[in-house]
Amino acid sequence: MNNRIKKEVNKVNVQSKLNALNEFWSPKIIGELNNQQVKIAKFKGEFVMHHHQNEDELFYVIKGTLFIKLKDEIIELNTGEFVIIPKGVDHQPYANEEVSVMLFEPKNTLNTGNITNTFTKPNIDTI
Amino acid sequence: MNNRIKKEVNKVNVQSKLNALNEFWSPKIIGELNNQQVKIAKFKGEFVMHHHQNEDELFYVIKGTLFIKLKDEIIELNTGEFVIIPKGVDHQPYANEEVSVMLFEPKNTLNTGNITNTFTKPNIDTI
Repeated sequence: MNNRIKKEVNKVNVQSKLNALNEFWSPKIIGELNNQQVKIAKFKGEFVMHHHQNEDELFYVIKGTLFIKLKDEIIELNTGEFVIIPKGVDHQPYANEEVSVMLFEPKNTLNTGNITNTFTKPNIDTI
Repeated sequence: MNNRIKKEVNKVNVQSKLNALNEFWSPKIIGELNNQQVKIAKFKGEFVMHHHQNEDELFYVIKGTLFIKLKDEIIELNTGEFVIIPKGVDHQPYANEEVSVMLFEPKNTLNTGNITNTFTKPNIDTI
């Protein structure tokens, strides 16, 4: 251990962080490691179909049901389930009811990938 | 999307994967993305104090209570909480009762870091 630098190690309660979110499709950063970020978001309604050129993306459902439409299928994720969308794969998240999601992806991954529209959030806060 | 390669996209139910574990301190891989791995493990008792020279490590508690002893403090993680242990930071996980944990760390991170002992698992299966 490098004792010259005091590294802060703080635990994160995911639900407490989710409680602070009041906007759909607006991810926030809650952790960073190995040039990857942990994000949370609440989804309801339909997002835009998009892909990420260079980033694989993990969606883990904390609470609720998330659908992810792919080219040929729809994946249904319930509480405690995750899926990894490989880079280059078109995907469109949607949710009939509010769903709370945790995401893992490389730092600076843009939420709408190759698309720019009103959903695009170029600057994401850490909470 | 690259249509020349059919990429398989399968969801993972974390609890179902945990149900297949029957040994403590024996992590299994359940996902891989961006040269990182998602692992699960069940812990009970006391692990060895160690650090990872180059890898930050995330511990997310799926069910139960996990303690992580650091140099100057003990972190208590309950269900739905995570902590990121930065590279170089000595840490010793322990659990008084069985706890189910999900981990995120770079591919090929060794579970005992700088230490080699009976806990060391150099080859980890994907389940």
